[in-house]
Formats: sequence, C-alpha cells, structure tokens
Amino acid sequence: MIELAASTTIIMRLELDTQSGSFAELAGAIGQAGGDIMAVDLIHADKVSTTRDITVNLLGNVTESGIIQVIKKLNGIKLINVSDPTFLVHLGGKIEVQPRTKIKNRDDLSKVYTPGVAKVCMAIHENPSRAYSLTIKRNTVAVISDGTAVLGLGDIGPEAAMPVMEGKAMLFKQLAGVDAFPICLATKDTEEIIRTIKQLSPTFGGINLEDISSPRCFEIERRLNEELDIPVFHDDQHGTAVVVLAGLINAIKVVNKSMDQVRVVVTGIGAAGVSIVKMLLAAGVRNLVAVDHMGALCRKQQYDNPMWTWVSQNTNEECAEGTLSDVIPGADVFIGVSRQGVLKVEDLKTMAKDPIVFAMANPEPEIDPELAEPYVRVMATGRSDFPNQINNVLCFPGIFRGALECRASVINEEMKLAASWAIASVVSDDELNEQYIIPSIFNDKVVPLMRKAVIQAAIDTNVARRIPREFR
Amino acid sequence: MIELAASTTIIMRLELDTQSGSFAELAGAIGQAGGDIMAVDLIHADKVSTTRDITVNLLGNVTESGIIQVIKKLNGIKLINVSDPTFLVHLGGKIEVQPRTKIKNRDDLSKVYTPGVAKVCMAIHENPSRAYSLTIKRNTVAVISDGTAVLGLGDIGPEAAMPVMEGKAMLFKQLAGVDAFPICLATKDTEEIIRTIKQLSPTFGGINLEDISSPRCFEIERRLNEELDIPVFHDDQHGTAVVVLAGLINAIKVVNKSMDQVRVVVTGIGAAGVSIVKMLLAAGVRNLVAVDHMGALCRKQQYDNPMWTWVSQNTNEECAEGTLSDVIPGADVFIGVSRQGVLKVEDLKTMAKDPIVFAMANPEPEIDPELAEPYVRVMATGRSDFPNQINNVLCFPGIFRGALECRASVINEEMKLAASWAIASVVSDDELNEQYIIPSIFNDKVVPLMRKAVIQAAIDTNVARRIPREFR
Repeated sequence: MIELAASTTIIMRLELDTQSGSFAELAGAIGQAGGDIMAVDLIHADKVSTTRDITVNLLGNVTESGIIQVIKKLNGIKLINVSDPTFLVHLGGKIEVQPRTKIKNRDDLSKVYTPGVAKVCMAIHENPSRAYSLTIKRNTVAVISDGTAVLGLGDIGPEAAMPVMEGKAMLFKQLAGVDAFPICLATKDTEEIIRTIKQLSPTFGGINLEDISSPRCFEIERRLNEELDIPVFHDDQHGTAVVVLAGLINAIKVVNKSMDQVRVVVTGIGAAGVSIVKMLLAAGVRNLVAVDHMGALCRKQQYDNPMWTWVSQNTNEECAEGTLSDVIPGADVFIGVSRQGVLKVEDLKTMAKDPIVFAMANPEPEIDPELAEPYVRVMATGRSDFPNQINNVLCFPGIFRGALECRASVINEEMKLAASWAIASVVSDDELNEQYIIPSIFNDKVVPLMRKAVIQAAIDTNVARRIPREFR
Repeated sequence: MIELAASTTIIMRLELDTQSGSFAELAGAIGQAGGDIMAVDLIHADKVSTTRDITVNLLGNVTESGIIQVIKKLNGIKLINVSDPTFLVHLGGKIEVQPRTKIKNRDDLSKVYTPGVAKVCMAIHENPSRAYSLTIKRNTVAVISDGTAVLGLGDIGPEAAMPVMEGKAMLFKQLAGVDAFPICLATKDTEEIIRTIKQLSPTFGGINLEDISSPRCFEIERRLNEELDIPVFHDDQHGTAVVVLAGLINAIKVVNKSMDQVRVVVTGIGAAGVSIVKMLLAAGVRNLVAVDHMGALCRKQQYDNPMWTWVSQNTNEECAEGTLSDVIPGADVFIGVSRQGVLKVEDLKTMAKDPIVFAMANPEPEIDPELAEPYVRVMATGRSDFPNQINNVLCFPGIFRGALECRASVINEEMKLAASWAIASVVSDDELNEQYIIPSIFNDKVVPLMRKAVIQAAIDTNVARRIPREFR
C-alpha cells in the first residue's frame, strides 16, 4: 500500500441555525474536545442559517470522530461534511481549460470562430503539418491511463485514476509550460487502448502513458510508437529510468568509479526495471545482473515473458544464478524497483567498496535507509523524507518540453540518455556529495537544460521535424 | 462554401541584415507600393540581424503579392513569412490547460500528487460518483468531431477541424465557465467513433458532438445517449434548433399569432432540420410541412432515410405534396436550413399576412434579406451582418452549464425547450420588435437564465443527479 500522508487538520462544513445555534458554544466545544480552530470561512448566509467552513487542528491523540461526536450533541448545528486539506485541493478538479485570448467583440469572434476560422481550417487541410503552428497540437500532450496500475494502489479504475493524471497535468504546465490533458479510459483491453489512442491522436503533439499495468504497457507503447508519428512515452518505465541514470551518473562520480567498470544488480524486472536495464546498458554499463522473484535472469533459462528473455540475453554475461544474496557479492551498485525488505544488511556487507544503493520500492524501500546507512556510501530512495529522492517528476516535463519544441516523431534512447545527463549536470562538481546527487524538482535549471539536450539529441538522430532557431 | 472574412491587413515577418538592410528603405518601399504600416514589433535582434513583425494595411486595390514583390527586390531584407491577423490569433492554438492552484513547495506537491493523492483516488474507487466532486468531471465537456462536416467546408479531416473545436472551447469557458477540451478523431467509422467516445468518457461530465456528417450523426448521438450516463449533445442538430425556437417564440409574439395556429414550412431536412422539426412539434406547432430536394415529405411516400420517414409520419397531416412553391402558400413561417436561393420573392407573396422568414443557409441565405425585406414582417438569418442572427453560440454554453451543475444524465427535449424559452425571455416585451427577437451572444443574461431553466427542467424530468441548493 501507498504511504498515506498523515493529516492532523480537518475542515468541517457546519450549518448553524440562526435561532438556536451558537458559534461561541461551538468554538468552546471544539476547544474542550482538543481541537484548535485555525480558520473560519463563511460560505453562505441567509435569514435562517449560516454555513461556515471551520479548519481545526487536532491536538495530541484527538481523533476526527471524537470532535464530530461532540459537535453532533450541540443544538442548532448541522454537520454537512468533513474534509481534509488534501481533499480540498482536489475539489472540482485541479486543472482548467482557459482561452489564451478573450473574445471582446464580434470582430474577435469572427476571427476565432466562424466565418474567419474557415481559412485557418483550409490552410491546415491543404497542409496538415500546419496543425503544429495553428492548433494546440504544438504544445499539448495527452496523459492517458486505464487505471490498472495507479501508484501502489493497483487496478482502481479510470475515475479513481483521474486525480493522479490531473496532478501530472499540473506539473507539466507549472514546470515546463506544457499543456497536458488527462484522459482515463474505460477499457483494459490492449487492442482497444491502442485503437482509442490512435483515434484521438490528431489533437495531440505527444502521448504520455501512465499507470498501465505490465506486461500490457510494453505492447501498447511499442505499437503506438510504430503506428503514430508523435512521441509515445510510458512514464512509469522511462521516467524512472531517466532519473535513476541521472542519479547513478552522479553517484559514480562521488565514489570515483566509471560506468563501464561497475557491477550493477537490478531487482524488480517489471515496467520500470526493464527500462532501467536498457538505459544502463545504453549508458555503458557492461556488468549487470537482473534479479526478479525467480532469481537472477540468466541466458540459460527460458522465460514466458519476452521482456525477461530480452534482459536475460543482454545482461549477466557470466551467467550468475541464484537469489539476490547469491549475486550481490562484489556489486558496486544496487538498484531496486521491487518491494520492501528484499535487501538485507548482510547483503550490503558483501558489496564492493563504497556501495551505491538506490532502494526505490514504493512506499517502503528495499531496505530501511537508516539501517543501511552505516554500510553504504551513496543512498537514494523514492521518498521525499530522505536525501536523494529519485522522483520521475524530474523527467516528464523537461523531456516533453524538448520533444514538442522540435516536433520529434519519437522519444528515442538517445533523447532519454541526453535527458539523464542534463539532469545530472544540474548538480555542479562543487555541490556534488553523498547527500546531493540529484536536483530537486523545484530547481529551475532542470527543464531548460533537459530541453536543450533533448532537442540536440533529436536533431542528431534525425527525429526532429523542426529545428528551433538556436540550433540552426 | 463558407464566407471568408475579407482581410485587408497582413503581417509580415522580416529579417533585416544589420549591415545591408535599411528599415527606412523598407518603409518607403511599402508606402510607395500602397501599403500603410500600422505597427512594428521587434521579435529578435542580434549582432547580424533583426527580425520584426510589420503590420500593413493594404489600401485600395493593392494586393499582398504586390507588396511582397516590392520587398523581395530590396537588399538585405529576408521575408520570413506573411500572415494575417486571423491566423495570428490561432498561432499555437487558442486554449491552454492551467493548474487551478500553484504547487509552491513539497507539502503542496504531496497533496496534489503522490503520496497524498492516493487517499483521494481511493475515495473515488470506493464510490465512483465522487469523481464529480474530486475531479474535473464536474465541469468538463469534450468537444468531439471527426472533421466530416466542418462549417460549410465539408470533410476536411480531424487536424483541419481543430481550430473550430478550439474556438468552441474558448466560448464554453468565456460565456459559461465550462471547461471544454477539443478532440478530433482519426476515424469516420460510426462504430469506431461510438467506441472511442465511450472509452474516453470517464474523464468527462458531458460530450458535445460537433460537425459530424449526416446521417451518421443521428446514430452516433442516439447510441451514445443510450450507452453513457452523461449527456451527449450534437450541437449542429440541437443547438440550432434551440435557438430557432427561441427566435420563433419571439417572432410569433411580434406578429401576435400563436404556436398552435401557425403554418410552418421547414426546408432542408438534414441534421439541423430534423431537430428543428422535432422541437417545433414539442413546442406546440401542429401544422408543419417539411421540404427537402425531393419535395414535401408526406406519409404516402417511402423513404430510405429513417429520419425522413419519421418526419413524414409526424408532420404534414393534410399530405401536401410538391415543391416548396407548391406548399408555401398560406404559410405563416418559413424556416430554411437548406441552401442559397431556394426561396423566391414570388413565394413570399403567397404567404399568410405578416410572414416570418428564418433563412439560415450558410453562408448565403435561402433568399437575399434585402430582396425579401419589403414582403416579410420578421426576418432572421445566420449572418452577423443583418439583424436577428440565429447563432448556436447562444445555446451550447448555457445548456451545458445547467446540465453539468445538476449532473444531468442526458439533455432531454424538456431541457432544450426550457433553454429556448430562457433565451427568448432575455428580450423583454419592451425591447421586442421586428429587428430584435433574439439576444446577442454577448448578452450576459443569457447563460444565467438558461442555466436556471435547464436545471429546473432536468429536476422536473428526473434526470438530475444533484439538486443545487437554490432548487431544494
């Protein structure tokens, strides 16, 4: 299960009868029950009643239900609902669609709509690539999920997945100026998903797939990239991989080793794991062992999952077999995208000098960072409450910023590698240390550096259909 | 073909070589060629060149190509592109996706995204109807087209249809606060369109179908309304019909007749025509003859088109047959959604006293309004350059505003009738006259009155799933 943020604040909407309800009595009762009133907002008032939102901090071990019981005993006061601040920021959705200009009069209307719009339509009809300059396609990405693998919550359905997709859309805009629109699909069928996304693709300049369960996500992404001429990027796979590599580039610098010399063990060979393996190989790692619940993947074995077959044939040259504990001795780097507790302190002790451990299982890492600390030189997790958070929010805004600006037809391996190096470069040599290998998502150097690197890589690999001025 | 707005202004982007180009020479040449420089905007400057946008008004019979020829002869000046103001407002698209709140710090991030978002997702998973309060579903409509019947332009494809759909999205937001997102589909297949829209429906609170050619539009709308639990509204059919009825309510008041007494002739029994016929019958018209290119629709005939069969069996009780000229004598009202020139002055002379003529063929009406004027009491067209414009922009923002606020499962006939009466009511009895039967789309009374009427009708017909406070 996902880590649920502990909330010690609740917001109650209360209706006070003007005749019989007393705000003073209410405030007194909340205080006596252990609640601290932080804010009061008037929502509605008429002759018979007033409605207020009352924000209450719960002190000590006071519970929400304790406060509610006290309030229910009061005369003339009706509890309409109780919410917490997290729910409130989601109320009514977290994004909106805004016109970029205001239609002030009939002349404006005749330009943005009929009759003037007709000549803009015909210009695109004559040359569909003009959609990139005359419509939102230029800067708009669809964030698409089927709700089957949402965070650590699993298959919760399309409606329930929307808050995550809306959150991504917010981050796309705020961090990189990309217009992203969330769409959650009422199907889990691979072919249906592919077909639906193809049908709605004319509107968009790119597709960000999200939280689609493995192994369907591989086929969906592969087919869409083959069949569409806009980039299709499954963030759960590649976003994580790009940020892991960025962190590893800097971690290896800290310990003064090199990518082609280190021995890397990766656990959890699902959507993210496969992409991490591929990127590490592309970045020059030569000694890599992939481990899943059946043990180390080895080319002597047969696998039903075609991704495992690929990984087994392209890693583990020495054919190491057995469990994680069997293959970790001598490893320089551990990368976990598996589950809580798979890595033991005993395993750490067998690693090479200056071990690097990225334990990114969500919400609880493969090993407790505090337990690991004495035995590890560089430690990273997926959590925000420890140093070196590997957060894929670092990747998707900047990589799409670059891909959209050069009208890339795909986001290829070279663009992802360039993105990793760009993220890593935000941490200067002066700043770099064990506790700081990866920048914060709020660091405003991240997106401009990624944008530039991604565009250059797209141009170099001939997938850019537009060369921005500064690259000419 | 659609009316193309005559533009006498062009905007040229010119790059002047710092060494050899002279702005004074450029300005002089444009002036001599008959162009009037209205504005100059610096776009980019560096050591070797400067780039400017020069807005030029073309005087007399000066042409764009005439000006361009002159400029091309100048030294050190490169013409990058020429655009006109209509194109400029479309540049990069006309809408954007904006976060409703800013993520200022890690605490904000943990509320809108992981880990805090997880409990919001689970709340919806437990009760999917919470999507209406915790996601954008509450206020978001998809504007969906396949690009087959765009304005008067026909089948121009999904990319080319986007500027119209973006324009609608702007109007939805500006006029009614509705978040609308445009999606153009890469298929014309009826079943594919239905399937695609069903798959993406979890995100939306309503679907506005747009510019889908007849007869596929009927099947698509009917099926989606049966199979989805959110309103599906084909604007080309019902938007026009709602506004026509609004205008007719007031026109009939002007001539002091009554809905159940007038004889109405409708020409053009396509998507809009069928919906107009249905609404007029629902509004109490009893004497109606529908005419298409084969003549008056009559119950003695057989038709391949099931819509024509329905219309023929529910109108024209007297079984009038023949051409428009054969059936118009004695008619009180002519409503045209057909094509230029089908109505003659001779036809007008045979109509009943105080004829009402709505000639809405696009862009040229069924009869020239100036020719018709001496013989007609109330005249309306689809054009903005004559009084009484029947513009469906009057309908879709307000009707969806109402439908969304009460979470209507459909937009039914009663809600459309209520919308027509609400639009008509904006013109007060004091204001009402032959030249003013329908309000402007910029009249800010339109949407609030429609909203209220539509919600009340939804409640009365049991399709509202939420009763807003003021209706309790």
